[in-house]
Amino acid sequence: MSPSRHPLDPLAPSEITQISSLLKKLSPDHTIHFKIINIDEPPKAQLRAYLKAERNGSPLPQLPRRASALYYHRGTSHLFKATVNVDESTVELVEQLDSHFHAQADVNEIIEMRDACLSNPKVLERIEAYKLPPHLKVICDTWPYGRDSEDQHPRYVQCYLFAEGDHPGSNHYDLPLPFSPILDMTTKELADIIQLPTGPKSELRPDAVFVPHPPKEYHHDLQSKPARTDLKPLMVHQPQGVSFSIDGHLIQWQKWRFRLGFNWREGMVLHDVTYDGRELFHRLSLSEMFVPYGDPRMPYSRKSVFDVGDIGAGVAANNLALGCDCLGVIKYFSFVIGDSNGNPVEKPNAVCMHEIDDGIGWKHTNTRTGAVSIVRSRVLVLQTIITVGNYEYVFMWHLDQAAGLHYKIQATGILSTAPIDKGVTVPFGTNVNEGVMAPFHQHVFSLRIDPNIDGDKNTLVEEDSVAMPWDDNNPYGVGYVTEKKALTSSTHSDSAPNRVHKIINPHSINPSSGHPVAYAIHSPSKQMLLAHPKSWHGRRAKICLPSFLAGDYTYQSHPSHTPDLASWAGRQDTTEDTDIVVWHSISLTHNPRTEDYPVMPCDTMTVSLKPSGFFDQNPALDVPQSTQAGNGSRLVEDEALKHAVEGQASGCKREVKL
Amino acid sequence: MSPSRHPLDPLAPSEITQISSLLKKLSPDHTIHFKIINIDEPPKAQLRAYLKAERNGSPLPQLPRRASALYYHRGTSHLFKATVNVDESTVELVEQLDSHFHAQADVNEIIEMRDACLSNPKVLERIEAYKLPPHLKVICDTWPYGRDSEDQHPRYVQCYLFAEGDHPGSNHYDLPLPFSPILDMTTKELADIIQLPTGPKSELRPDAVFVPHPPKEYHHDLQSKPARTDLKPLMVHQPQGVSFSIDGHLIQWQKWRFRLGFNWREGMVLHDVTYDGRELFHRLSLSEMFVPYGDPRMPYSRKSVFDVGDIGAGVAANNLALGCDCLGVIKYFSFVIGDSNGNPVEKPNAVCMHEIDDGIGWKHTNTRTGAVSIVRSRVLVLQTIITVGNYEYVFMWHLDQAAGLHYKIQATGILSTAPIDKGVTVPFGTNVNEGVMAPFHQHVFSLRIDPNIDGDKNTLVEEDSVAMPWDDNNPYGVGYVTEKKALTSSTHSDSAPNRVHKIINPHSINPSSGHPVAYAIHSPSKQMLLAHPKSWHGRRAKICLPSFLAGDYTYQSHPSHTPDLASWAGRQDTTEDTDIVVWHSISLTHNPRTEDYPVMPCDTMTVSLKPSGFFDQNPALDVPQSTQAGNGSRLVEDEALKHAVEGQASGCKREVKL
Repeated sequence: MSPSRHPLDPLAPSEITQISSLLKKLSPDHTIHFKIINIDEPPKAQLRAYLKAERNGSPLPQLPRRASALYYHRGTSHLFKATVNVDESTVELVEQLDSHFHAQADVNEIIEMRDACLSNPKVLERIEAYKLPPHLKVICDTWPYGRDSEDQHPRYVQCYLFAEGDHPGSNHYDLPLPFSPILDMTTKELADIIQLPTGPKSELRPDAVFVPHPPKEYHHDLQSKPARTDLKPLMVHQPQGVSFSIDGHLIQWQKWRFRLGFNWREGMVLHDVTYDGRELFHRLSLSEMFVPYGDPRMPYSRKSVFDVGDIGAGVAANNLALGCDCLGVIKYFSFVIGDSNGNPVEKPNAVCMHEIDDGIGWKHTNTRTGAVSIVRSRVLVLQTIITVGNYEYVFMWHLDQAAGLHYKIQATGILSTAPIDKGVTVPFGTNVNEGVMAPFHQHVFSLRIDPNIDGDKNTLVEEDSVAMPWDDNNPYGVGYVTEKKALTSSTHSDSAPNRVHKIINPHSINPSSGHPVAYAIHSPSKQMLLAHPKSWHGRRAKICLPSFLAGDYTYQSHPSHTPDLASWAGRQDTTEDTDIVVWHSISLTHNPRTEDYPVMPCDTMTVSLKPSGFFDQNPALDVPQSTQAGNGSRLVEDEALKHAVEGQASGCKREVKL
Repeated sequence: MSPSRHPLDPLAPSEITQISSLLKKLSPDHTIHFKIINIDEPPKAQLRAYLKAERNGSPLPQLPRRASALYYHRGTSHLFKATVNVDESTVELVEQLDSHFHAQADVNEIIEMRDACLSNPKVLERIEAYKLPPHLKVICDTWPYGRDSEDQHPRYVQCYLFAEGDHPGSNHYDLPLPFSPILDMTTKELADIIQLPTGPKSELRPDAVFVPHPPKEYHHDLQSKPARTDLKPLMVHQPQGVSFSIDGHLIQWQKWRFRLGFNWREGMVLHDVTYDGRELFHRLSLSEMFVPYGDPRMPYSRKSVFDVGDIGAGVAANNLALGCDCLGVIKYFSFVIGDSNGNPVEKPNAVCMHEIDDGIGWKHTNTRTGAVSIVRSRVLVLQTIITVGNYEYVFMWHLDQAAGLHYKIQATGILSTAPIDKGVTVPFGTNVNEGVMAPFHQHVFSLRIDPNIDGDKNTLVEEDSVAMPWDDNNPYGVGYVTEKKALTSSTHSDSAPNRVHKIINPHSINPSSGHPVAYAIHSPSKQMLLAHPKSWHGRRAKICLPSFLAGDYTYQSHPSHTPDLASWAGRQDTTEDTDIVVWHSISLTHNPRTEDYPVMPCDTMTVSLKPSGFFDQNPALDVPQSTQAGNGSRLVEDEALKHAVEGQASGCKREVKL
């Protein structure tokens, strides 16, 4: 392996080209349609040995550098998986996948499908009959076809059509058309045009023509009301620079040390996370997400997207912009992925990193003496934002000074809309404008947690708070205890209001409490999948049932053919006191409100990983006290006298003595 | 009424003195021990008429200015309630309360009780026998006695004893003594000294003597490890000033308009909250909180505090300090309450207000054209912090630009500790140091929400997301709908993972959705009381059962005698389409971890009140676009070249066109 590349460094542009060239040479009679070219992270045991040696300053083992590729012979449905040894420039393995498997869409393909759709004569004929006014043009959002039968389909794309005006920010979701073409992604031929139901039930009106309505636009150029004029700027300064240090993808901040990764599918990944030299997590990533819709009518019954597996959180990552996506003193990370021709493509500013102040860290006032002890909470933010058609998702890691990691997901962007007849309402959606219905749906996210709590022999434990029986040991009926159940073989585990999940190291004992060190998963107890488990939504996305992953090939996946976490968990491997991986699901039931349209204020969910007896006392005790001299706050009244509050004694006011 | 005083203005110092003088004159043979002197908010119908006229610029009705007082004849258990007309300087009503009722503790009384405890000969004798080393002195934390029988007790205080060193920040919770005196608060005489159980069950060791152990201190002067040196300052500047405007207690910011109130019991109150001129909430406050402990053994079975009713969130409010409690450009509000002699006492800087940046407000990228629309989320923070013995609580309102209000509660400060024998553990607590056990407990908070959603005829509705049956209307089994149940008479309502509570105005209909306008209560679904409902914890604090308030007289309350929300709700008043009040309970089950000691990193809970079809579209559409010119962010690399990124074009980078 090239000594200058870390095993976890994403592929360099030259490596992507090297790999695609090798694979193209293997199929001289075909044009290769690349879907994935990605670094293969080394097998965990070898990788952990490397990472430990790196942290300890020991000699580094040699790890071969390998990559995976997934590709079609262009214009066919023949899908291949290959492994390439990058160091030796050799192809180690090629296998053709069973025809049940379909690769995800890619950016180039999406453009081709849109063009094919909008130039198809039958589609144009239908558009003509809809009688749109001349100033509007039709555009096409492509959706994964989903699944609603056992049959093996060709690889299809569902095209939802909208009309838009000239402005680059015109809100086409405000003008959904009531018919939807389906195209074969291999042949680019039209398979069908489905009339969309626009009545209260499944009524179809194939002769419907365009009916105008007052628009709802989000772009600031297109607002009828002027922008607010009373918002004064707020700026974040770090006059002595930032507290983090960076060496390539290695980041260190406030006792945290970790390596930032990135790939086409998961987007941002955190590797080898340690705090104050102690091992915490081997790998943290967004493994999958699923957005099933609750409109029961065809074709909406198929409307369900795996935005990670079907599209790719890395592929869909925004180019973050200074001051707009990130406030303060910012570090941007750019990455490179492969395109459908095997060429490297930049994802500039795909991840940003910066510090924020997050309020009070901890405080206590001794009311007898007046002594105040207070620190503020400084947090390190790593952020990436993806656009997947209408929706945006913001994904962030917040690392705090008390050794907590918080994964925050925000949904924003534009609701998926469907046409609806004037005067009609449905019980599974909200009318957000005249003729515009936003169906109920859920957003389910799967966070892959590969723990390394003081080492890799861990166990997942359910810890429930349970009332003691009212008896002689509990004579007043107020006592409660915790009951712990270790999960000893691979399985799923439900959340509950009285339950916390902990990842423990049974061999590392906290000297004060006497209990094994642990990290706890704190997550809101939310409703999981509303669709029936035996529906296609339920069968394809068992992540919506507790803690299951959807597998590698989500596009039009057939659950019987797709190995997924349900099948892996079904193996009943031993999971006690060993190297385990936890997939944690969190969901948001989203019944659109009118306030979510024409663009949605961020709705936030947080999963927190917090130490639970991992440290012998508060790990943020040594954070310096918060002082006015250091923080430079100002009184509103003194703003005009900019120097009035400078020079105040450092330290905090004493409380009134009791 | 004095024309310069608003009906909701807290009492002025001169008014407090005026009221206490009037009441003292009524009881010339007694010294008055004041517990409460507080403004009586006018009856709601009159008050609403006044507030509406004020907002509309109409002539203001005359409202009499009244105050309430609660007081003892000092040295007796005779408790009186009085109503005073402040304008006319007359006492309108005095009644002696039934002997079942006890007033809360007050600051002066607490000091007297501590002194009485630590000078009592029997207590001193016991301390002597415990053989503390000479450099440690004993101090006393007073706790409400609680209740564990039907009997009518005198008003007692439970004194927990600790040893501390010389330093003003010495952590006395690290050295709990194993015996606890009980004093009569009226006579100041010793009622009993209880030996505390220190074994695994209820074992008592009355002959135990002091055993030293390595200390755990939180004060920065007393740390063995040096403070971190790698934290660089982070400052928040608002070079053009703040976006809010203040007129006395009237605050306006980003279409919000409300009046800030404060009283001894609830601390910070928000009155007459409107957004863009539309009525939202008449009154918002923390109504009560309850902290029941889960150690089943006597006397811990009585360990339960109503920090609002027993002490007062206004009384216990910290003096917030610039730069320490609040970062940025800060407005402080100071208030005045009455002391036990009826004199005004200042609570300086009890509430602070300032803006924060809270990340992205909303974003959408049109991936075809590259047009990016993005606004940041600016939030107005109102914060108060209380110290109640060992614990601190931070209470905040966060108001956002999309018309959402978020009530945030943070627990910090020091765990309540109990002595434990070396080598012993218990299943209902955590050993946080040698000889120091922190028992399991819960924190339950009751948020009083008096809605005024587009007017005061509102209804509370339970809205559940429910799967449709798998039938002809739902042929693929994926459909789901919402089922709504209006609560038509006063009652309680459970939370559930699939449920949202909404406060609707049935007469105000959203023109797009066709549904009544509403605000939704978003709250984590947490476990409520673990103690048995029939235990004294359960009987006294029905807020821990869904949505009940504990009543006015919480100190040693006997539930049969104390009118509380259970009894009010039990009246089964009509609550549909009328003036309703909602008490929302939220709880934190706190099983201490070693990381929570010797001082606890803030643990945060949030209840959000968000518009749900109240607005016809996103109310934050008119927030100005986020620009680099406005936000002045900097690249890490350019920090040395401070001017390198200034002068960049305003606006955000365009995305790569598809």
